Amino acid sequence: METFYLYSPIIAAVLALGYAFYKASWVAKQDPGNERMQKIGKWIAEGAMAFLYREYKSLAIFIVAVAILLAGSNASLKDSHWMIALSFVVGACCSAAAGYFGMKVATKANTRTASAARKSLNDALQVAFSGGSVMGLTVVGLGLLGLGVLFIIYASVFGTAYSATDAASPLNITLNVLSGFSLGASSIALFARVGGGIYTKAADVGADLVGKVEAGIPEDHPLNPATIADNVGDNVGDVAGMGADLFESYVGAIISSMILGMGWYVGINNFNPDPMKLVYDPMNGIYLPMVIGMIGVVCSILGTFMVRTKEGGNPQKALNTGSIVAGVLMIVGTIVAIYFMVPRTGDIEVKNLITGAKDFFPWWGLIVAVAGGLIAGACVGFVTEYYTAMHRKPVNAIVESSRTGPATTIIQGLAVGMNSTTIPVLLICAAIILAYMFAGLYGVALAAVGMLSTTGIQLAVDAYGPIADNSGGVAEMAQLGRDVRKRTDSLDAVGNTTAAIGKGFAIGSAALTALAMTAAYITKIGESGHMLNLNAADPFVLIGLMIGCMLPFRFSAMAMVAVGQAAQDMIKEVRRQFNEIPELRPALLAAQKAESEEREPNAEELKIIHAADDKAQYAHCVDISTDAAIRKMVAPTLLALLAPVVVGLYSLEMLGGLLIGVTISGVCMAIFQANAGGAWDNSKKQVKEGGHHEYGDAYDMMHKATVTGDTVGDPLKDTSGPSINILIKLISVVAMILAPILVAFHFGS
Amino acid sequence: METFYLYSPIIAAVLALGYAFYKASWVAKQDPGNERMQKIGKWIAEGAMAFLYREYKSLAIFIVAVAILLAGSNASLKDSHWMIALSFVVGACCSAAAGYFGMKVATKANTRTASAARKSLNDALQVAFSGGSVMGLTVVGLGLLGLGVLFIIYASVFGTAYSATDAASPLNITLNVLSGFSLGASSIALFARVGGGIYTKAADVGADLVGKVEAGIPEDHPLNPATIADNVGDNVGDVAGMGADLFESYVGAIISSMILGMGWYVGINNFNPDPMKLVYDPMNGIYLPMVIGMIGVVCSILGTFMVRTKEGGNPQKALNTGSIVAGVLMIVGTIVAIYFMVPRTGDIEVKNLITGAKDFFPWWGLIVAVAGGLIAGACVGFVTEYYTAMHRKPVNAIVESSRTGPATTIIQGLAVGMNSTTIPVLLICAAIILAYMFAGLYGVALAAVGMLSTTGIQLAVDAYGPIADNSGGVAEMAQLGRDVRKRTDSLDAVGNTTAAIGKGFAIGSAALTALAMTAAYITKIGESGHMLNLNAADPFVLIGLMIGCMLPFRFSAMAMVAVGQAAQDMIKEVRRQFNEIPELRPALLAAQKAESEEREPNAEELKIIHAADDKAQYAHCVDISTDAAIRKMVAPTLLALLAPVVVGLYSLEMLGGLLIGVTISGVCMAIFQANAGGAWDNSKKQVKEGGHHEYGDAYDMMHKATVTGDTVGDPLKDTSGPSINILIKLISVVAMILAPILVAFHFGS
Repeated sequence: METFYLYSPIIAAVLALGYAFYKASWVAKQDPGNERMQKIGKWIAEGAMAFLYREYKSLAIFIVAVAILLAGSNASLKDSHWMIALSFVVGACCSAAAGYFGMKVATKANTRTASAARKSLNDALQVAFSGGSVMGLTVVGLGLLGLGVLFIIYASVFGTAYSATDAASPLNITLNVLSGFSLGASSIALFARVGGGIYTKAADVGADLVGKVEAGIPEDHPLNPATIADNVGDNVGDVAGMGADLFESYVGAIISSMILGMGWYVGINNFNPDPMKLVYDPMNGIYLPMVIGMIGVVCSILGTFMVRTKEGGNPQKALNTGSIVAGVLMIVGTIVAIYFMVPRTGDIEVKNLITGAKDFFPWWGLIVAVAGGLIAGACVGFVTEYYTAMHRKPVNAIVESSRTGPATTIIQGLAVGMNSTTIPVLLICAAIILAYMFAGLYGVALAAVGMLSTTGIQLAVDAYGPIADNSGGVAEMAQLGRDVRKRTDSLDAVGNTTAAIGKGFAIGSAALTALAMTAAYITKIGESGHMLNLNAADPFVLIGLMIGCMLPFRFSAMAMVAVGQAAQDMIKEVRRQFNEIPELRPALLAAQKAESEEREPNAEELKIIHAADDKAQYAHCVDISTDAAIRKMVAPTLLALLAPVVVGLYSLEMLGGLLIGVTISGVCMAIFQANAGGAWDNSKKQVKEGGHHEYGDAYDMMHKATVTGDTVGDPLKDTSGPSINILIKLISVVAMILAPILVAFHFGS
Repeated sequence: METFYLYSPIIAAVLALGYAFYKASWVAKQDPGNERMQKIGKWIAEGAMAFLYREYKSLAIFIVAVAILLAGSNASLKDSHWMIALSFVVGACCSAAAGYFGMKVATKANTRTASAARKSLNDALQVAFSGGSVMGLTVVGLGLLGLGVLFIIYASVFGTAYSATDAASPLNITLNVLSGFSLGASSIALFARVGGGIYTKAADVGADLVGKVEAGIPEDHPLNPATIADNVGDNVGDVAGMGADLFESYVGAIISSMILGMGWYVGINNFNPDPMKLVYDPMNGIYLPMVIGMIGVVCSILGTFMVRTKEGGNPQKALNTGSIVAGVLMIVGTIVAIYFMVPRTGDIEVKNLITGAKDFFPWWGLIVAVAGGLIAGACVGFVTEYYTAMHRKPVNAIVESSRTGPATTIIQGLAVGMNSTTIPVLLICAAIILAYMFAGLYGVALAAVGMLSTTGIQLAVDAYGPIADNSGGVAEMAQLGRDVRKRTDSLDAVGNTTAAIGKGFAIGSAALTALAMTAAYITKIGESGHMLNLNAADPFVLIGLMIGCMLPFRFSAMAMVAVGQAAQDMIKEVRRQFNEIPELRPALLAAQKAESEEREPNAEELKIIHAADDKAQYAHCVDISTDAAIRKMVAPTLLALLAPVVVGLYSLEMLGGLLIGVTISGVCMAIFQANAGGAWDNSKKQVKEGGHHEYGDAYDMMHKATVTGDTVGDPLKDTSGPSINILIKLISVVAMILAPILVAFHFGS
């Protein structure tokens, strides 16, 4: 059986990537729509590729530099190896490739969804969701493929023998070297999520200010070079950014559980063969996270089959059915896997990495851990939905407060965001304590793996959102019929909810993953014979906690300010194009005239407008904005990378405190910002929808107030909030990778 | 000498209260101004007393209930006594009395400041600052008096013998019983700060919405019954609220250092008499915090003599001189005290309460701790000033962002607030680590005492602000001359800065005090033979940290929402009076007519207006608002009181995590909210001041945007932000008081 377990990630990767390839081909074969739709689609796709090209160019330099540093610093360690740099590069490449393919298909699916919406709601849903599925399954497929292949290589190069008393046992070296994969994933996530977050909101603000306010042309007008950047931004932030974020969580959770699984090596080895005469490989604790990953792939694929609706049906229900089926199957699969992989006679003996004593756990404790994580993740999503959905108490309260203007709207929104931290934090606490009580620290890491096991379908649902959103934009711009727009609107409305749920899920899993990686950091230090006691009353740990707690505040502020500054660069570029490209001026005037007279452009005007169609330099505009985004993310990146290094060189205990401080405060700040932003967004939608018995001036006041709320919420929910996920994971993964170096630095090698 | 040390708090109290009484009589003797000024002053004073009456009525029930609970639960413990209830009641009464006297004098000083401003700037400054001094010195005087008298009583009832191995040694019992004083102070602080914070902003919003917007009469008009409540609110929030907050920090820091000083008992006892043949009492570690308090009183009084300015001078400079002189004298005094109180031959041996090992500290380590705390406190104040002052980078950035409307103003303000957390947190960390390295956990507690040692003058400077603010209001309403208003404006402008500095100081000292009380909690548990290991990697501690970290978010949200709801009650009451009091309607119409024609009321109109002068029921309005404030603070109060009880009954380790989590996240949230609010407030002032080369519509846009920012900032900086100070201290003091009960619950007595 062990060969099967060893190769399980490869099998899963083949399944996931095969299915993704099939879905991608299917999407590509769909009707791309009329000429105008294709043209718009081409602009968006080109913009997205322009962004990726610039992003990966900057990334390449960063990756090479870090790889050299990693190889050099690890070469002389007895419990690591220069090949950690290989893991790092492969991790970065896998994440980058997942982003590339996911976005490629997403930018194909948008026009095809609009086109399919001309036929029926279910057709449109199928195209949009298939586009999302490609992202979802590519992420888990490439994650498992990279991890699986590297593990097989390292296992044969270094071996897998383990000794609890030797920090440089072959299994330690194998897993230390493998953990570089996680750092590679984090690096891409940093660029994709933070840079992408800055990019998307800068483009949004820039496009609105120059296009709508200054030039007086409609939103999403193709004459505005930043409009395409705005549409690209949706893909960049919500598809590629979210994908890289979850890719990082996914591999981070698996690798840290594999490291913590070493504690179970001896435990599982210590078995009495049970009546069924199954052979328990001592490596099963290491294989289990990967096997859960494989089961998750199968369940995700099965779940996608459940996503279908009929005309007039609710797409949300279809998506929920898919997720729930996958989750239920996942629990069944987990029970089966653990039943066969863990000896069931007598308790399992595990060394407690905190107290140094021996703990005894029942075999089914691992099931509790995995299922607890999975259920907690789902519940965090539901709670997020409650706090951000229209016509629920929190959003109703914001809408009510909008009657007295923008200030009360902001205050109420801040209060909703802050309130919304309570239940998710308690849910995460419950998952942690259950997992720990029944399966120790390994259980906590497995709870993270459990939460992320169905990432395939979770991310598919999530990436569906921006595709549906873009399809609505395409339908709008291509002036498709009223019934088509109604269908895309119905898909898009659901997309807002899935975006909120996806954010909650991403935060919850980031928190658990960061804690798992923190546990791996402590374990790595502990393995070297220097057991860390992170006594929070010890001022060194306390200061680590305090500084860690403060970092998400600093980081959020940096991200928010960066959005404003990057928007300025975008505004300058759009103004330049308006002034320097001769065809744009008359076209703008024509469009403006029609807009100011509140009518569609006439044939004459359309001719002038279409003459300028290809003249706006979308790619250049995208490039400028990308450049600004990448420049503005240098400071936050340095903060996230240097904080653990500086603190770690000073004190291992302080670094431990820092990891925990940044995670606990980060999770609150991320939830607060994401949900405040989401609630403001939907408050605006609810006011627009009407039904508040307010007309004329009173309606205008409510509308203006909620628009202000929405604008405040934009960078919070799409830039600074989600970026905190990356901050907490990146700091943890840097600490995990640094651990052997820090041990050598503090105690000599 | 030990008798001198023992009686030092009494000596200090006599000095402080004597000086306060002298200053109060001096203020009372000043010219109260013309008839109209006296009338306005009487309304404000009556309103303030109406508030205090209602507040203390509600408090009395709460105090009696908690006293009974405390007496009952402690009566059967071997290391405590029912007399802890006595400490509790005395603590509550001392804090309440300080609030009463401070506010009584503050509400006298406001009209007298306006009256003195008719003579010269220095005369006005003297009256306003003398009014503030009464509050400052009454707080420290009553704090030391209560503590000193109770300690002398308990020391004679229970004794002061100490044994490191007996949790029920006489000294343990004495200090356990004494610590009830701190809980009493906390209870008043909760009502004064949270209730007062809700009150002041509810009155502010209510007065504005009904008066200015609905009735169309000018701001601060005596016809509006809520206007007086608004002025009362300034006294309630910034004088009584701040006073109770610092009273709590002050006594909390002293008591927790006395508890941690027990660890030094043996150390100081273990001395070799030095050549000067001084006798070192083993109790010196317990006396030192009180002696530092006494020195602080002397330095504060000396500092107040330095506060004087000349015509056209800068009052800020005068106030700074006073604070700096007091601080420098304080450091000198501390050196002298520690030189005589601590043996200077050989290192002092102290048991480390975290590791259980023995630490050795130099005698001058305590000087480092006290001075470090004092300097860190001052620096936190300066940093706060930087982030909130006009014409500095942060406020300039907000003003710039106001050009693009309210949304960008809000985003930039949030970013400024979040950014401003970094340096104060690092300063607090520096004070902690220095104190710990040179004097252990006792040093950390002494750093808190050091920071708070000059509370006398700090609070005087702080309470000066609302007096100056009110005096400006009185000058405005009594239509004093232009030069008088200019003088009160110059005093008031400084008041905004001192308010910001005072808030920073209150937060910093609250954090250090909470940590000192947490250390006292750990010590109390440790003394009972159950050494707590708050290993942050232990999931029980981790969950405590997570929940603790989340609480300030929840608490802030509750406070913000409460302001909005309480404002609604105020609005209803004002509307009722407008409708039901027959004289008000014609007077309102007359005032409204003059206002709408942008002129002062003519003689005819003035006659109608003055006929209604005494008819508005200010006290009733104040009562309604007080009632709403007290009702709305029930939920946050329960949260703060029950969280430590519930968590503590579940796990002592989780409670330890909770204390630290709430402190580290609370300090960031409090700084963020206070500074964002302060920066928005001054951005509005800066825009009003002009000089931004914007006129007409562009100016209106900036002004509107910054007004929105200011309104959002109001509850943040005056309600939810400062309330967090109370939350973190209250949770810590509850844990400290509960410790013996929890030990009995978890381990049997």
